[in-house]
Amino acid sequence: MKLSEISSILECDFQGQDLEIIGMNTLKEAKENEVSFVSNSKYVKDLKTTKAAAVILSENLVSELPSTCVALVTKNPYWSMAILSKYFAPPIEETSLPAPKIGKNCTISPKAEIANGAVIGDNCTILAHVYVGAEAEVGNNTILYPSVTIYRDCKIGNDCIIHANSVIGSDGFGFATNNMGEHKKIYQNGNVVLEDEIEIGSNTSIDRAVFGSTLIKKGTRIDNLVQIGHNCEVGEYSIMVSQSGLAGSTKLGRNVVMGGQAAAAGHLEVAAFSTFAARSGITSSIKEPGKTYAGFPLMGHRQWLKLQAKLAKLIK
Amino acid sequence: MKLSEISSILECDFQGQDLEIIGMNTLKEAKENEVSFVSNSKYVKDLKTTKAAAVILSENLVSELPSTCVALVTKNPYWSMAILSKYFAPPIEETSLPAPKIGKNCTISPKAEIANGAVIGDNCTILAHVYVGAEAEVGNNTILYPSVTIYRDCKIGNDCIIHANSVIGSDGFGFATNNMGEHKKIYQNGNVVLEDEIEIGSNTSIDRAVFGSTLIKKGTRIDNLVQIGHNCEVGEYSIMVSQSGLAGSTKLGRNVVMGGQAAAAGHLEVAAFSTFAARSGITSSIKEPGKTYAGFPLMGHRQWLKLQAKLAKLIK
Amino acid sequence: MKLSEISSILECDFQGQDLEIIGMNTLKEAKENEVSFVSNSKYVKDLKTTKAAAVILSENLVSELPSTCVALVTKNPYWSMAILSKYFAPPIEETSLPAPKIGKNCTISPKAEIANGAVIGDNCTILAHVYVGAEAEVGNNTILYPSVTIYRDCKIGNDCIIHANSVIGSDGFGFATNNMGEHKKIYQNGNVVLEDEIEIGSNTSIDRAVFGSTLIKKGTRIDNLVQIGHNCEVGEYSIMVSQSGLAGSTKLGRNVVMGGQAAAAGHLEVAAFSTFAARSGITSSIKEPGKTYAGFPLMGHRQWLKLQAKLAKLIK
Repeated sequence: MKLSEISSILECDFQGQDLEIIGMNTLKEAKENEVSFVSNSKYVKDLKTTKAAAVILSENLVSELPSTCVALVTKNPYWSMAILSKYFAPPIEETSLPAPKIGKNCTISPKAEIANGAVIGDNCTILAHVYVGAEAEVGNNTILYPSVTIYRDCKIGNDCIIHANSVIGSDGFGFATNNMGEHKKIYQNGNVVLEDEIEIGSNTSIDRAVFGSTLIKKGTRIDNLVQIGHNCEVGEYSIMVSQSGLAGSTKLGRNVVMGGQAAAAGHLEVAAFSTFAARSGITSSIKEPGKTYAGFPLMGHRQWLKLQAKLAKLIK
Repeated sequence: MKLSEISSILECDFQGQDLEIIGMNTLKEAKENEVSFVSNSKYVKDLKTTKAAAVILSENLVSELPSTCVALVTKNPYWSMAILSKYFAPPIEETSLPAPKIGKNCTISPKAEIANGAVIGDNCTILAHVYVGAEAEVGNNTILYPSVTIYRDCKIGNDCIIHANSVIGSDGFGFATNNMGEHKKIYQNGNVVLEDEIEIGSNTSIDRAVFGSTLIKKGTRIDNLVQIGHNCEVGEYSIMVSQSGLAGSTKLGRNVVMGGQAAAAGHLEVAAFSTFAARSGITSSIKEPGKTYAGFPLMGHRQWLKLQAKLAKLIK
Repeated sequence: MKLSEISSILECDFQGQDLEIIGMNTLKEAKENEVSFVSNSKYVKDLKTTKAAAVILSENLVSELPSTCVALVTKNPYWSMAILSKYFAPPIEETSLPAPKIGKNCTISPKAEIANGAVIGDNCTILAHVYVGAEAEVGNNTILYPSVTIYRDCKIGNDCIIHANSVIGSDGFGFATNNMGEHKKIYQNGNVVLEDEIEIGSNTSIDRAVFGSTLIKKGTRIDNLVQIGHNCEVGEYSIMVSQSGLAGSTKLGRNVVMGGQAAAAGHLEVAAFSTFAARSGITSSIKEPGKTYAGFPLMGHRQWLKLQAKLAKLIK
């Protein structure tokens, strides 16, 4: 899509070279043929070094932009970004893609649906009512139990097991809101990447990234009914117990343990080997590795026990 | 079904005209050809004005009944209501209904199941392993991702997106219990109505109403793994973050925000523009619009921060 | 499999008679043709009376073993047990099993998948996209809504209703971890047994046992999005409200009520007629029947109300 078309869609002026744009991305990750945006003051600092061809932003930030970068000035840049995201969303399925490519020695139920453009490795077992979307990839020796849904473009590694009715790659929970309180969907044009030797329980949801990838690293164990938001990263050999959840963009280091019903807010970084007791609520980043926590608000596990002892005294 | 048959099923006496009864309903909503019941003292006040043809009730309430209304006296009216509810449950599927009616320009997977009597609008995308039940309706431009289940009689609006493995219209959690501790199912003969421009995440459950409708209003955004009980109402442009839940019959106003894992008890009314932090537990109705809350028991968000500061001091 | 093969797989010495072994089990439950293990000091006491043909254990426990029982000595017995569990896992499906046996007067969607070796009773309704695995059994008059998945070997009783997208028999969350922090799957070779007259909501997960059965007793009501871990037992006529959960091996007595989002830790026993308010967190066994609890940590419901009143005073 040409920059001139984009400026027309966003109803904003456009000056400069009419480049071909192939996608959208964050200021940091955008390439020379991508459009970016700034809607949160936290990211203004990334304006000066962005490689984006153009940036959607408000009038007052134009002066911060590198001279090589085109300004797309709108009143509500986040809303504009949401509008534009739809134009870069790939079709859900594409009959024009080649028939799915299936490896050697697979058992695939005739009642599973493998979309055009998908690639399945060797020795896979894919049971009835599974869906593998366009251009999704499944590695070798992987087992997909009934009614697992893998959305388009997601990548599943080797030696993975995904239990029944889990969903990999549903849209992240992203939208802009205008001053009438109405919401506009931000299309989630990223994907989910599962590395090797991962096991995922039943009825678990892992959302696709808005840009880039939601990433689950090697050897991780995820239980039933777990929520992983868009753009999260779960480190190697981590453990997420049933009904736990991660809000968007949170990154766990390796061997992190999230107890049952524990949850983390979004945009946090959690050091490796951290352990969170059941129902922990993590609301800020954890820098020191290897500690054990509990409670909401979160505290050291010993402190939590001490607090509970104090509270027990209160009612005696 | 004739009133005489009903009295025979409930093993109770019957006096008056033998009317044809077409359904069951609350005292307030019942029409002249419906049966109602009273099992909770809270609703005795509705007896005098009910339009129901007959009411299942205990001996001591007969005198409260309008003279035009037939008394069906039983020892455990709630249990009797449960017994009778089964007789008004429609069949799960009906081969006698007309073949499903599909709008123009739809993409419907041959691996989806659209039951007889269902109606699909124009420009819909319905992926593999979706189920749309008898007499369910789906509006224009709506996308149903794989393994979405829409139960019979439910209505989905225009421009909706429902992500994989979510369920619209499963039975509400309703049953009567006798003095032996045994449960009797109350058939959930209502439905779910989703208005336009709603997006629902993956693995979310929205239960059908026992009578009438569970209602999700225009523009609402519901995340993954969310629970919405029978007879709830969610106002326009509300937001329910992952793993949050509403117990039965709770009504949210417009632009209410429920944070992750937040929940509300049943039969509450929550004013518009209320915001609930993650893990809030709402146990009474909120009358004043536009405030922010946290905690369980629920309190103002600032109070909650103050309480946490006090508790932190306790252990220093 | 011969004991000599097992000792070769586990890379340990083997002395004694080369018996044929047909499975694995706990020390208490193991039969004369099964292998057991001890990895937790809590179970050392069961060594002396085990009937197992052989036990995987560490060097220092060999002397505790009955003379008739073969010692399989390894450095990390839990890890060895995990390795061996894979060899006793049945295939996911078996084309060599007989065609499924369907009772009289059933309605089974051609879009459901009933695996070879499954047995369906009379008068069942099985909707589209349901999966019933190898050697699974479904009783009479049972309804399976769309996209329900019943894993192999699970038993569903008579007069049960399972709502859409629920999963019965996914693998319990079991693995051994080595000193590098890597995990090894423990194959879950048990099953799930649902007795009669049980109703289960949508998007609920009930995990299969590692050995033996996860058991849900007669008349129990389980709501949507509920988690039941491996080897749990839920007593007759119990009630589990939406988003509640039980960690592995916890046993509830009859008529226990778990409120919404309530949860229990693993390996607990909960007395009959106990009631837990919404969000209760049960961390130790409950011996006295018939009481009402709340909070996390758990306390009597009245105490919880008292504590909340005290806390409210703190911030006044």
